[in-house]
Amino acid sequence: MPDTIKTDFNITTGAIAGSRKIFVESANDPSVRVPMREITLHPTANEAPLTVYDTSGPYTDDTAEIDIYAGLPQMRRKWSLARSDVEEYEGRTVKPEDNGNASEKYLAPEFPVRNKPLRAKAGVAATQLAYARAGKITPEMEYIAVRENQKQETYVANTTRGGDPMGANIPDIITGEFVRAEVAAGRAIIPANINHPEAEPMIIGRNFLVKINANIGNSAVSSSIAEEVDKMVWATRWGADNVMDLSTGRNIHNTREWILRNSPVPIGTVPIYQALEKVDGVAEDLTWEIFRDTLIEQAEQGVDYFTIHAGVRLAYVPMTAKRVTGIVSRGGSIMAKWCLAHHTESFLYEHFEDICEIMKTYDVAFSLGDGLRPGCIADANDEAQFAELHTLGELTQIAWKHDVQVMIEGPGHVPMHKIKENMEEQLKHCGEAPFYTLGPLTTDIAPGYDHITSAIGAAMIGWYGTAMLCYVTPKEHLGLPDRNDVKDGVITYKLAAHAADLAKGHPSAQARDDALSRARFDFRWEDQFNLSLDPDKAREFHDQTLPKEAHKVAHFCSMCGPKFCSMKISQEVRDFAAKKEAEKGMAEKSAEFKELGSQIYQPQDAAE
Amino acid sequence: MPDTIKTDFNITTGAIAGSRKIFVESANDPSVRVPMREITLHPTANEAPLTVYDTSGPYTDDTAEIDIYAGLPQMRRKWSLARSDVEEYEGRTVKPEDNGNASEKYLAPEFPVRNKPLRAKAGVAATQLAYARAGKITPEMEYIAVRENQKQETYVANTTRGGDPMGANIPDIITGEFVRAEVAAGRAIIPANINHPEAEPMIIGRNFLVKINANIGNSAVSSSIAEEVDKMVWATRWGADNVMDLSTGRNIHNTREWILRNSPVPIGTVPIYQALEKVDGVAEDLTWEIFRDTLIEQAEQGVDYFTIHAGVRLAYVPMTAKRVTGIVSRGGSIMAKWCLAHHTESFLYEHFEDICEIMKTYDVAFSLGDGLRPGCIADANDEAQFAELHTLGELTQIAWKHDVQVMIEGPGHVPMHKIKENMEEQLKHCGEAPFYTLGPLTTDIAPGYDHITSAIGAAMIGWYGTAMLCYVTPKEHLGLPDRNDVKDGVITYKLAAHAADLAKGHPSAQARDDALSRARFDFRWEDQFNLSLDPDKAREFHDQTLPKEAHKVAHFCSMCGPKFCSMKISQEVRDFAAKKEAEKGMAEKSAEFKELGSQIYQPQDAAE
Repeated sequence: MPDTIKTDFNITTGAIAGSRKIFVESANDPSVRVPMREITLHPTANEAPLTVYDTSGPYTDDTAEIDIYAGLPQMRRKWSLARSDVEEYEGRTVKPEDNGNASEKYLAPEFPVRNKPLRAKAGVAATQLAYARAGKITPEMEYIAVRENQKQETYVANTTRGGDPMGANIPDIITGEFVRAEVAAGRAIIPANINHPEAEPMIIGRNFLVKINANIGNSAVSSSIAEEVDKMVWATRWGADNVMDLSTGRNIHNTREWILRNSPVPIGTVPIYQALEKVDGVAEDLTWEIFRDTLIEQAEQGVDYFTIHAGVRLAYVPMTAKRVTGIVSRGGSIMAKWCLAHHTESFLYEHFEDICEIMKTYDVAFSLGDGLRPGCIADANDEAQFAELHTLGELTQIAWKHDVQVMIEGPGHVPMHKIKENMEEQLKHCGEAPFYTLGPLTTDIAPGYDHITSAIGAAMIGWYGTAMLCYVTPKEHLGLPDRNDVKDGVITYKLAAHAADLAKGHPSAQARDDALSRARFDFRWEDQFNLSLDPDKAREFHDQTLPKEAHKVAHFCSMCGPKFCSMKISQEVRDFAAKKEAEKGMAEKSAEFKELGSQIYQPQDAAE
Repeated sequence: MPDTIKTDFNITTGAIAGSRKIFVESANDPSVRVPMREITLHPTANEAPLTVYDTSGPYTDDTAEIDIYAGLPQMRRKWSLARSDVEEYEGRTVKPEDNGNASEKYLAPEFPVRNKPLRAKAGVAATQLAYARAGKITPEMEYIAVRENQKQETYVANTTRGGDPMGANIPDIITGEFVRAEVAAGRAIIPANINHPEAEPMIIGRNFLVKINANIGNSAVSSSIAEEVDKMVWATRWGADNVMDLSTGRNIHNTREWILRNSPVPIGTVPIYQALEKVDGVAEDLTWEIFRDTLIEQAEQGVDYFTIHAGVRLAYVPMTAKRVTGIVSRGGSIMAKWCLAHHTESFLYEHFEDICEIMKTYDVAFSLGDGLRPGCIADANDEAQFAELHTLGELTQIAWKHDVQVMIEGPGHVPMHKIKENMEEQLKHCGEAPFYTLGPLTTDIAPGYDHITSAIGAAMIGWYGTAMLCYVTPKEHLGLPDRNDVKDGVITYKLAAHAADLAKGHPSAQARDDALSRARFDFRWEDQFNLSLDPDKAREFHDQTLPKEAHKVAHFCSMCGPKFCSMKISQEVRDFAAKKEAEKGMAEKSAEFKELGSQIYQPQDAAE
């Protein structure tokens, strides 16, 4: 590779402040070693380190060597090969149109290493769903069990489960068998293309931790490969469980290859975007053959799930005519245009079983797209949206027939009082396949703050049962997210997902809140920073008011100053209560005051 | 005033982008002229301008002359005097301890103008509650009726009311009589101290628009008068309906005077903070006499509502001993310490009727403080919190007996599934007095992002019936908010309050969402910016990707680029649907496809 390109990459590596990478071995399978992030606490805390879920891959492992030009280690390849139901083959040749016919000067460099792709042997479904149904606990499932537990087996017995699960059924300890059963039931998916062996296995389902997805991707207007790889690493550093590459314009194929080979998380795409580029943006020129070829192209590269808008049927298109914002999904509008131009049923719907045949060959999961999702408050929960959702339910059954994993995409823009209906309809019509929603945004009036308008809806729908939340950045509706926007979006969605886990009563969720709250109460500032979702920002904000290092151990903060501190008084309350308890006098005193208190106001005539 | 101080003020004035100040006259009382903000739309929109609620006072009126050294016009003074139940008097002399005994060099300048205070004549309650109960519709009530309507009478008849009001009962059009009846019932308050005639009347109640409060205030550690006045103007510019001055340290009296004289919105305080300064921060040295004197000091200055933690009773203090974060309310912990030190009942509780006597003399409203609110997820909805809430309900009845207006403060830190119980308990025990909550924060793990963790809870509890939401800034738990934090907090809470209004089905709420969404669909970029809560940021974000002026009229955006646009396709769908409609062929075609569609997949054996 030329040096000029090499220096373009500027990837953030190294441990997140206050933490280190650890590996937790499965008790059932020593070949399964799951990376986690351990946050060390100050000795005065007298607490064990807190272990948290870690999406960041080797980039935060201080002992790992990162080489963007070689890609990440291919941990899962041996697992796929061991199953003996796959075979290596030559694969499809990259064609000029895969990169938008970019000529030499404009053509982004190919990834330096080429692996031959794997595919299932003829007639086989090489999918986690097929294995689960066959009763096999795969290494991926075992990995996920360890990962989801976050070492909670060490403390969960002492935890009181709270929350209102809203129908979720999360056990205290996740086992490989539980993972298998959930996948077999279709209630959870493991996006794990056999050609993306770099990805660390993860699961999306309502009986697991709520996950988040970050969208990246260049457009015809701006951005480069280096920027997109950086955004991917950056997003996973802060907690993105999945990343979707929504690139358009030229160089889509090569951009995606760099991302995939360096991504520790599953990558999703919307293949119709690339197909559209292959027909120069003219939707009506799309054909099943071009689309099919694009699916194979991307499946061989290792894309873990495809958003496919097969629910946008011809008959539903006119239902959108009276909407305030019509069809806002890019994929949805491409298919609507195609259907109208040909006045015939969508080729995605017509060829759905053919698509399943491809998906099952590589274990690409469906993310059945909500092409008719509402684009504004006025259009929420309308006829077009729910007509499509019902079709997605029908398609789910077909995919399952082929042993293909499925999740269902959801809106969009929905006022708070209409959010629950979305979850209920999805559960009712889609056989409990995992729901994956974009927000939803709870108002349209705050462009520039749509990470927040949507975090409100995301937290709520996550509580109600949505398994994965697609982030929205502050740039939504306005521009392409930069690095800062990606981080703002990821952290905002992590906190929304965590709020949902808490409300659902996930067995380990509150452990982190409690550890941080204890640190806050004890004025362990460093612990408070390190336990937070974004230690760097917490520290930076603290230092804006009280910059000195001495203040990091000060038993006060800038809100009240050194003279008075409510936390200090609370400590005195504790001491007082303990003393009284010892004297056995508190109970009586308290009772005495309760009685006195209810008598303290004399009858009205006497008082005035 | 010395010139050096003069130049310290750097207040933002001038209309918000794309809008102008208008005045809407009451049909019933031409002396009532209510300022509103009119957002003009592009001629191609063919829409009337949108009128929105305006909290910003004369600062955004391009025709107003602003003089911070003279204060705002005292519009309401004539209304108070016209009622003939008040009298001017000399008032209390400012004492050195009012400003923390600051010596000359450290003493902040007095406000240049001194008005003699007003007070109710002996035996009279000069409160909006007393007038309401007597059947009088005051100019304040008439003003509020016009203000709440935001000219919605011009379009509300054509609007479909949606939403789930959760027990709220908002009429299509607000009348003066409706305002009176709600105030008389105690379901709403009008914070309007007769000594704060600069404030524009507003109402807090669940059958009105959801309001937000912004906290400002210097601390012993940092900040100045100029900064605090600037923050107050800045907060109201972006939509703060109320501002609380939580200053501590020296110069509290003089700082507050500058704020009050220049504030177009009601100002709240926590008088115990200043009382504590008067006893050098030693809580146990507080006495009823010092507190009483502080109440009169602040009431004469014009503070519109006092947070009073009279529900922190001695018997409840030990209930907090086993909490993870004890007592986090500053006022609550001051009172807890006092109770413990003297081992006697709170003097606030004991003297509650004496406090009422002062409040009714100036029409200061109670904001009954939740001194025992939970400071972390673990402590939410516990015994201490609800014990105090029940006492606040008891105190509400006593305040109402004295014709004093009351709202109730609420938490704090609460996971989503426990939020509704807070609203239900408050409604049950506090006689439907308005609820005023801080957030609540739905997780503890995101310091630096607590405006968002709390906006989730705020939107939800606003929907459930909370009348005013106290903002939380990104600096919460970490430092003092600066100007940017204040704006982030205000805009975040405006969008949360608006999401709540939408969910409640407020008759005019969706008009703004719809107008913005139409602008978005039509690629009227300027209209989209101007209709948003923060036009400056929306424009800035757009311009980061597409900076040229030409792009502001471009029919595409940076997400999809010029080649493909889903909005454009939606327009084609509309044209197509219209054409088909004309041909009367659409219905048949659609039916045909629906039928075809459900047959498209052949029985399984045939398909494979």
